[in-house]
Amino acid sequence: MVHTGDGKGKSTAAFGLALRSWNQGWNVGVLQFVKSAKWRIGEQTVLERLGQLHDDTGEGGPVEWHKMGAGWSWSRKEGEESDHAAEAAEGWQEIKRRLAAETHDLLVLDEFTYPMQWGWVDVDDVVETLSNRSGRQYVVVTGRRAHPKLIEAADLVTEMTKVKHQMDRGQKGQRGIE
Amino acid sequence: MVHTGDGKGKSTAAFGLALRSWNQGWNVGVLQFVKSAKWRIGEQTVLERLGQLHDDTGEGGPVEWHKMGAGWSWSRKEGEESDHAAEAAEGWQEIKRRLAAETHDLLVLDEFTYPMQWGWVDVDDVVETLSNRSGRQYVVVTGRRAHPKLIEAADLVTEMTKVKHQMDRGQKGQRGIE
Repeated sequence: MVHTGDGKGKSTAAFGLALRSWNQGWNVGVLQFVKSAKWRIGEQTVLERLGQLHDDTGEGGPVEWHKMGAGWSWSRKEGEESDHAAEAAEGWQEIKRRLAAETHDLLVLDEFTYPMQWGWVDVDDVVETLSNRSGRQYVVVTGRRAHPKLIEAADLVTEMTKVKHQMDRGQKGQRGIE
Repeated sequence: MVHTGDGKGKSTAAFGLALRSWNQGWNVGVLQFVKSAKWRIGEQTVLERLGQLHDDTGEGGPVEWHKMGAGWSWSRKEGEESDHAAEAAEGWQEIKRRLAAETHDLLVLDEFTYPMQWGWVDVDDVVETLSNRSGRQYVVVTGRRAHPKLIEAADLVTEMTKVKHQMDRGQKGQRGIE
């Protein structure tokens, strides 16, 4: 699945799918391609809390959430200069390992269109890997300007289009909703 | 806010907003305009579970989820014939009471475009009520074919457009994702 377009709701809808998947007892993985691991959103807190609930009580399914940058503990060394391209490439390798191991029932690759757009991750490799993945693994890719090859390979593509936004009228973003 | 269009993700993105709002300790209300109260989705289970978590531990915020039909206990009498138009109109009255009382910080009016489209709820009344609501109350309306007056009155409108769907290729809907 691909959620693309310039409108709101691409990631939010993917996290809504994660909510539903958790409820079905699915193993949920979110791999978030963000510039800074310090950037933490409410959905992460809640989904990790639901994962904790699973661990404590058996309700729902397990949840893992990993971020690029310092969030990718397996790729980062102490004191090392940040190298976004290398981190994105390593992140993609980790995704490939998880797909091969069928770790998750639902895998959200949040903002994953950007490393492809910037040439950090090879689109052909992504398309081939996703097209040939084994078992029943749902994968959602979010982000603007999804590559045509990714759109071609996807089963379900939704474009979120901005029809109107209060920012256009000069108002500030609203905390918690923006 | 309005989530409209023929694509996927309108409701799912609204429930994703509810997730984030809960995490901020907001009072979340979902009023869902569905034909049958028997129709229950995973998001309801999870959001009500989060509301329970709030009641038990103080985490997050309170959550209420009500459905049209038999779900609207304040409008339904035992043995009464189902009257969707009357139930939708009464549902709207309940929403007006909640807006006047500032009951919720986030109010999701799921699939609320349809009772407007079918003439069960007066669009002018909705636009006037929402435009003049007091305090800080976020309202999200989801559904296809949002009325132009509603779009005009909204601060943020996102159209979810179906670019491609595996149903087009003759495959069946996927349980839990569709």
